[in-house]
Amino acid sequence: MLTIYNDQHALHQGKVEMFRGELVPCFEVPARVDHVRHELERRGLGPLQAPDAFDEALLAKVHAPRYLDFIAHAWDEWVALDAANATRDALPSYWPTRGMRTDVLPKSFPARLGLFAFDAGTPLMAGSWTAARHGAACAWTAAQRVIAGGERSAFALTRPPGHHAGADFFGGYCFVNNAAVAAQALRDTGVERVAVLDVDYHHGNGTQAIFYERSDVHFASLHGDPFTDYPYYLGHADERGAGKGEGFNHNLPLPRGTDFTAWRAALGTALDGIAKVKAGALVVSLGVDTFEGDPISGFRLKSDDYLRMGEDLARAGLPTVFVFEGGYAVAEVGVNAVNVLEGFAQK
Amino acid sequence: MLTIYNDQHALHQGKVEMFRGELVPCFEVPARVDHVRHELERRGLGPLQAPDAFDEALLAKVHAPRYLDFIAHAWDEWVALDAANATRDALPSYWPTRGMRTDVLPKSFPARLGLFAFDAGTPLMAGSWTAARHGAACAWTAAQRVIAGGERSAFALTRPPGHHAGADFFGGYCFVNNAAVAAQALRDTGVERVAVLDVDYHHGNGTQAIFYERSDVHFASLHGDPFTDYPYYLGHADERGAGKGEGFNHNLPLPRGTDFTAWRAALGTALDGIAKVKAGALVVSLGVDTFEGDPISGFRLKSDDYLRMGEDLARAGLPTVFVFEGGYAVAEVGVNAVNVLEGFAQK
Repeated sequence: MLTIYNDQHALHQGKVEMFRGELVPCFEVPARVDHVRHELERRGLGPLQAPDAFDEALLAKVHAPRYLDFIAHAWDEWVALDAANATRDALPSYWPTRGMRTDVLPKSFPARLGLFAFDAGTPLMAGSWTAARHGAACAWTAAQRVIAGGERSAFALTRPPGHHAGADFFGGYCFVNNAAVAAQALRDTGVERVAVLDVDYHHGNGTQAIFYERSDVHFASLHGDPFTDYPYYLGHADERGAGKGEGFNHNLPLPRGTDFTAWRAALGTALDGIAKVKAGALVVSLGVDTFEGDPISGFRLKSDDYLRMGEDLARAGLPTVFVFEGGYAVAEVGVNAVNVLEGFAQK
Repeated sequence: MLTIYNDQHALHQGKVEMFRGELVPCFEVPARVDHVRHELERRGLGPLQAPDAFDEALLAKVHAPRYLDFIAHAWDEWVALDAANATRDALPSYWPTRGMRTDVLPKSFPARLGLFAFDAGTPLMAGSWTAARHGAACAWTAAQRVIAGGERSAFALTRPPGHHAGADFFGGYCFVNNAAVAAQALRDTGVERVAVLDVDYHHGNGTQAIFYERSDVHFASLHGDPFTDYPYYLGHADERGAGKGEGFNHNLPLPRGTDFTAWRAALGTALDGIAKVKAGALVVSLGVDTFEGDPISGFRLKSDDYLRMGEDLARAGLPTVFVFEGGYAVAEVGVNAVNVLEGFAQK
């Protein structure tokens, strides 16, 4: 399988994140992608290519201009605020809650940081924007290869991940929604309806929010129940889309402790839904934090299960763009992610 | 002046708060109230009394039941989550932003903590609820003394402060809105319209939000411009109230560097507004972080200016309940707060 690789990913490397009242080392680390790349190379599973030149104006198709403007300049603003900030990542301390205003952008940078964030676990640093926009280029390029380039599938190997980033907010280690960029790119290439299937342990709240009122992009997600799991405030089964998008959002929350048998059954339900809406292409938000050894998740998938997952995804018979998302059992991330790709490629 | 004193305030004593990307020692400390008490005693400015027995069901007149239920049990839940939490304060790490749900309460405690918070600067600990509800009792008792008891004025000396707490959210060191409790108590005693005047450096977003659609409580606030100052997402001049409350919200944001001459002119404007709506009683949210030496604020009031402030407030000629709010130049907080009370009492 062709892989489009973001060689700028390590420019984003957080120091600490807020986790249950304390600042702890970040779970989302560059070694995650390095392990996947090494495993791809070890198995010889197709070439690694750099992304094509990418017109960043396309980002405005899935993100709000005021948000893109903020994220692009955030690091410079943070350091301008206080030279000592150059040695520490930007993390928000306050945010607008119910009844507060988001129509007026504060002049204060920390206030805008909180306005655009939904957690204090997504540190922003000097290289975050470069890493994130190169990631979008990877996702966009993978989509081009699959449709215009005639590939059956392609894999965008990048970090930071993307599926928690909404049109005008970041969080969950995500700044730019790579899966949304890929889906939009497939639409722009002429696919009438695209399905995004999110198999990450955590609900893809950003992707859902971006496409919630659209019928041309169907969103389906299997994830830890938001009653107990991040991102908590979205991902329930009764979220079915709104307006023109009604019926094109399909959440399958699953309890902690779910094993592959139950997970696979839910995958079948999600794929049935995708077949029913007659999607012409598939974007898979490929997180492997469903693994039993993941330090911040609660499912019980084993490494071999990811081969089966890839086979099941292949049976959908759709041109498919894989976009790398979460997975924090760092040493096993490579084997698990590449198992999905190999399972898919062998079917 | 009669003071109703919360002798439980020191049960609330935060360790650290998030401040520009780092955990730093809390600015809001027990010594603040101790300094005020000592200064009251030194000047012999009237007796200190304990609050009367308080029916906590009255809190539901200004706070949402689901919020009160959460705050009352939050510490026990936090410790039940992890025994090690007993040694660290609860601080949120994520929160619902635009498009996320707040109608469904997550089972996860950290998720509910973030749902009800609007900053990561308001640590919650074992004694927070006890300290906060005794503070509400102080504010309620002070209101009783002023109306039913025939006192011209009374001072609720308590912490944590209250004016940032809304009907169903906490933040800015505030859990229960003491000023709102006092205003509601005055209403319940038969005052047809109560004015709340917030002279704290920071906009009283919680108080505004609680009364925004009500005409029986007029809210006026002088504060650092939210474009540059906490709480950032509320406090603009164009917020004039809504529904029946339209015209009963009066914000006077002032630029950083404002001195007492300009501040006093704005106070005059606020008092004119209060006279115009024919308020029958006044609640003053008394923060003294307008002081030139305050470490987290930006006005330039000097200690003697607080005597003049008290005199100006007295000229309104209304039964008045003072409720202690912010002020973080700890050593000077006593002199400055008591200057306001003395200036008021001598007029």
